[in-house]
Amino acid sequence: MRQYPKPLAKLINELSKLPGVGGKTAQRLAFHILSMTDAEAGNLAHAIEEAKAQMKYCSVCGNLTDTDPCAICSDKSRRQDVICVVESPRDVMAMERIREFDGLYHVLHGAISPMDGVGPEDINLKSLIVRLQNSDVKELILATNPNIEGEATAMYIARLIKPSGIKVSRIANGIPVGGDLEYADEITLLKAMEGRREL
Amino acid sequence: MRQYPKPLAKLINELSKLPGVGGKTAQRLAFHILSMTDAEAGNLAHAIEEAKAQMKYCSVCGNLTDTDPCAICSDKSRRQDVICVVESPRDVMAMERIREFDGLYHVLHGAISPMDGVGPEDINLKSLIVRLQNSDVKELILATNPNIEGEATAMYIARLIKPSGIKVSRIANGIPVGGDLEYADEITLLKAMEGRREL
Repeated sequence: MRQYPKPLAKLINELSKLPGVGGKTAQRLAFHILSMTDAEAGNLAHAIEEAKAQMKYCSVCGNLTDTDPCAICSDKSRRQDVICVVESPRDVMAMERIREFDGLYHVLHGAISPMDGVGPEDINLKSLIVRLQNSDVKELILATNPNIEGEATAMYIARLIKPSGIKVSRIANGIPVGGDLEYADEITLLKAMEGRREL
Repeated sequence: MRQYPKPLAKLINELSKLPGVGGKTAQRLAFHILSMTDAEAGNLAHAIEEAKAQMKYCSVCGNLTDTDPCAICSDKSRRQDVICVVESPRDVMAMERIREFDGLYHVLHGAISPMDGVGPEDINLKSLIVRLQNSDVKELILATNPNIEGEATAMYIARLIKPSGIKVSRIANGIPVGGDLEYADEITLLKAMEGRREL
């Protein structure tokens, strides 16, 4: 089989390293990029370099930001006494999308996973402890993912923080809104029953 | 809702212009790019710029190439008397993948589509006519896509070329190998019946 010309092969190779992009998709994207105008392709390349150069992690909460501290940490109109702990910057955005929570965040950049050799010291946890010591935070909401690693991380943090008297809570498990009881897995249904509220 | 920091928003916007990449995927890709090392992100950006700068269309066949004429056109070991006409450079790669055809190609960069205002003069057809006049090509294989536009294009080219005495053929329609008769659409099945061969 004839090889792709080198610059094209290199582009396909680089694109195929992206998540969810297999060989076929990388080819399609590469051919599309070649069909774009020079300006459009330049914009894409430039946006990658610029974002990579300007985006960093907030020294306070660990969120992705182009200012330090980030816009959320430096927003004094937000409640300063609640911190929501999440695994990734994308979870911060998901949380912000509900337009309800107006406290602060702490991004762990991962979850404790002994199977993958990720211990408490490998995630952004130490800075949370320091942060709690120097503040008057009253509640810590653990919003790690409801999977084995996320639950383990939540349990670990809860045990670590509770002795200090700070209220520690965990987001609820249950049937997603618009979901179908019939198709819910047993554990989710069990959690939904356990978490039932009086009306 | 809190806005993304500007460099991130710009990257997401640029990525979402790619085919098959919606808002959610663009976000995921952007966050992945930010989690890559500087070198990795640089490689990606550089590959885009380099491919865009170095890849051009072959002046003979119209295929994407980094040399002119392209590697296929300048390969004298290939049959010079058969030209396979395809719609896009990706079709050339698909054809090369079967490792069977060793003639030359001609890339139309589109198909005739009056509905979209694409006429014969809007595709890379004139250069094919010139090419045929100055060569001893004996067969023209029309491998445009088996849809309305591709069929119309094949018909148009066939009518145009046949008077010159060059053999004009069209690739076969039928049930894909490994396909299921039961799930084949009527037109495909009809074409498969029409194209039946004695064993």
